[in-house]
Amino acid sequence: MPSILEQEIMQQPQVIQNLITRETPHVKEILQEISGRFHYVVIAARGTSDNAARYAQYLFGAHNQLQVALATPSLFSIYVLPPNLKGALVIGISQSGKSPDIVSVVAEGKRQGCPTLAITNDPTSPLAETAGMVIDLGTGKEQAVAATKTYTASLGALALFSALLENNPQNIAALESISECMQQTLTGIQPLLTHVERYRYMDRLAVIGRGFNYATAFEIALKVKELTRTVAEPYSSADIRHGPIATIANGFPVLLVAPGGAVTSDLEDLLATLKKRRAELMIISDLPEFLSQAQLGLPITTCIPEWLTPLVAVLPGQLFGWKLAQVKGMDPDHPEGLTKVTETL
Amino acid sequence: MPSILEQEIMQQPQVIQNLITRETPHVKEILQEISGRFHYVVIAARGTSDNAARYAQYLFGAHNQLQVALATPSLFSIYVLPPNLKGALVIGISQSGKSPDIVSVVAEGKRQGCPTLAITNDPTSPLAETAGMVIDLGTGKEQAVAATKTYTASLGALALFSALLENNPQNIAALESISECMQQTLTGIQPLLTHVERYRYMDRLAVIGRGFNYATAFEIALKVKELTRTVAEPYSSADIRHGPIATIANGFPVLLVAPGGAVTSDLEDLLATLKKRRAELMIISDLPEFLSQAQLGLPITTCIPEWLTPLVAVLPGQLFGWKLAQVKGMDPDHPEGLTKVTETL
Repeated sequence: MPSILEQEIMQQPQVIQNLITRETPHVKEILQEISGRFHYVVIAARGTSDNAARYAQYLFGAHNQLQVALATPSLFSIYVLPPNLKGALVIGISQSGKSPDIVSVVAEGKRQGCPTLAITNDPTSPLAETAGMVIDLGTGKEQAVAATKTYTASLGALALFSALLENNPQNIAALESISECMQQTLTGIQPLLTHVERYRYMDRLAVIGRGFNYATAFEIALKVKELTRTVAEPYSSADIRHGPIATIANGFPVLLVAPGGAVTSDLEDLLATLKKRRAELMIISDLPEFLSQAQLGLPITTCIPEWLTPLVAVLPGQLFGWKLAQVKGMDPDHPEGLTKVTETL
Repeated sequence: MPSILEQEIMQQPQVIQNLITRETPHVKEILQEISGRFHYVVIAARGTSDNAARYAQYLFGAHNQLQVALATPSLFSIYVLPPNLKGALVIGISQSGKSPDIVSVVAEGKRQGCPTLAITNDPTSPLAETAGMVIDLGTGKEQAVAATKTYTASLGALALFSALLENNPQNIAALESISECMQQTLTGIQPLLTHVERYRYMDRLAVIGRGFNYATAFEIALKVKELTRTVAEPYSSADIRHGPIATIANGFPVLLVAPGGAVTSDLEDLLATLKKRRAELMIISDLPEFLSQAQLGLPITTCIPEWLTPLVAVLPGQLFGWKLAQVKGMDPDHPEGLTKVTETL
């Protein structure tokens, strides 16, 4: 009997397909309501949802010319000294919609007269009730403690928002076909998971991505931490060069998230450095020249436009985390010491 | 003969004193020039300077009601799809002023007509030449690869900017006396450093702070990584609860940055959780009730207002990193594989 986590991972293509079909008319209404009312975006989120927010930073910047600020919730919830949010669309992302710090940012945005939007899997949650508008992720209940389908659904909601705001038919069409790419990738990775045994005794990991897939690096690192207690730290390929590269030597395991795109030459350059430092390499990519240099190559479907690769590139990372938990003798559905809903102030 | 790093750490009180005296009239001029021209702030920085930017997020938010966005430089440098920066003051922070990705953000801000400010230790650098205004950190050449005095000088420059913008005489006076608190703390920590031997075989570390000292957690983690190759990961006390707490158990070393302030009760709550999970605790604080619960308590001077504690609380972390490098037989002035100036695209 498959674990709940595995089932939820496998549901993702369908979840995304449903989300796009169901929410397209609704997101169009939201866009009409907020039109002309903001010129930048503030997003409040924690954990997995915060990684979805990182995706929005790149997507809204590159496709919608919107600067995105990730909120510092303690200014709202603990210090109670919130900034002036003039000009901002305030978005809260939370699977449960229950964390008081995230609710406090959206409540303050509303108080200041900003348009506010909740992206949540619970349309009756405090976050949804606080925000002026809601995108319901509608994934069905997520039971595994480690979030997977609510992560890709959050990415899907943000991608839908961006593509409809941009009103670019080509990008909308690409989004509509992403579900199929997700399915192909999930199917393609499964036979490779036997090699995850190699990492039975791995106790640390660096996960590196850049640009659109900076978010993917953060999310894979979080999954590996939650599911296997491995100290997995995420980096951009630029940030790691500003100091942390010192930790990488002699078989230190590195998972590189490297779908082809504008960041490819930067990642190629980093890959050469990592090889020189004798890192152990796991690589998620659609590019044979990357995959062939890894001790564990994890291929994704080719020909996905770079801005949509985060919906696909995270999948091998989720499966890697799930399998590694098994290999290490841990329960993937109930990681010790974690609960599904985390409420922080 | 003391290492260069140790010398530079010890220079910090004087560097801050000089900076405040020298730059106060100049920052007042800058504030006049940018007055009324922005309602939020975008900051581009990498590595240690990015940690200074994190401080600005809290400081400018709490004291100046300014929302701060940390820039995503690759949108400017690699994708060349920069966001619209309308309404933003654009700040670049870089010790060397040479990293092309950081320069690209400030150049785009200037192109779009935003006020632009460089905070750098080299007033003839590309960053300084690109920005409309410059705050010169003036620390003298920083020779050790691991940045220390340029970090606290960057915090000092940001604190000076904020206090003068707020025009609050009490805060300006507090800033003027911080140098003395830094000196007292440096002197007080030194006899305790013999206990760092305890961590000779430590190979991972979590560093936790919240609010104003979220930046301090990031900066201490970076120093420990650079100087000792220990996998040191920074967290806020909220973020760690959203998943990564799973990694903390059975003697896992945690360094808690816990000067007294609005976040104290949140940190108390986390401390209880960490003790339950049997973490090894290093604690930087002015509060005896925190210090007494640590295996290694690292006291800072009492009675510093919370917003200024980051200038002081980082010092025990710098000394810890320096001493740990010694204990592990590493050269603190020349960490393997790092260079002083890192240029990333």
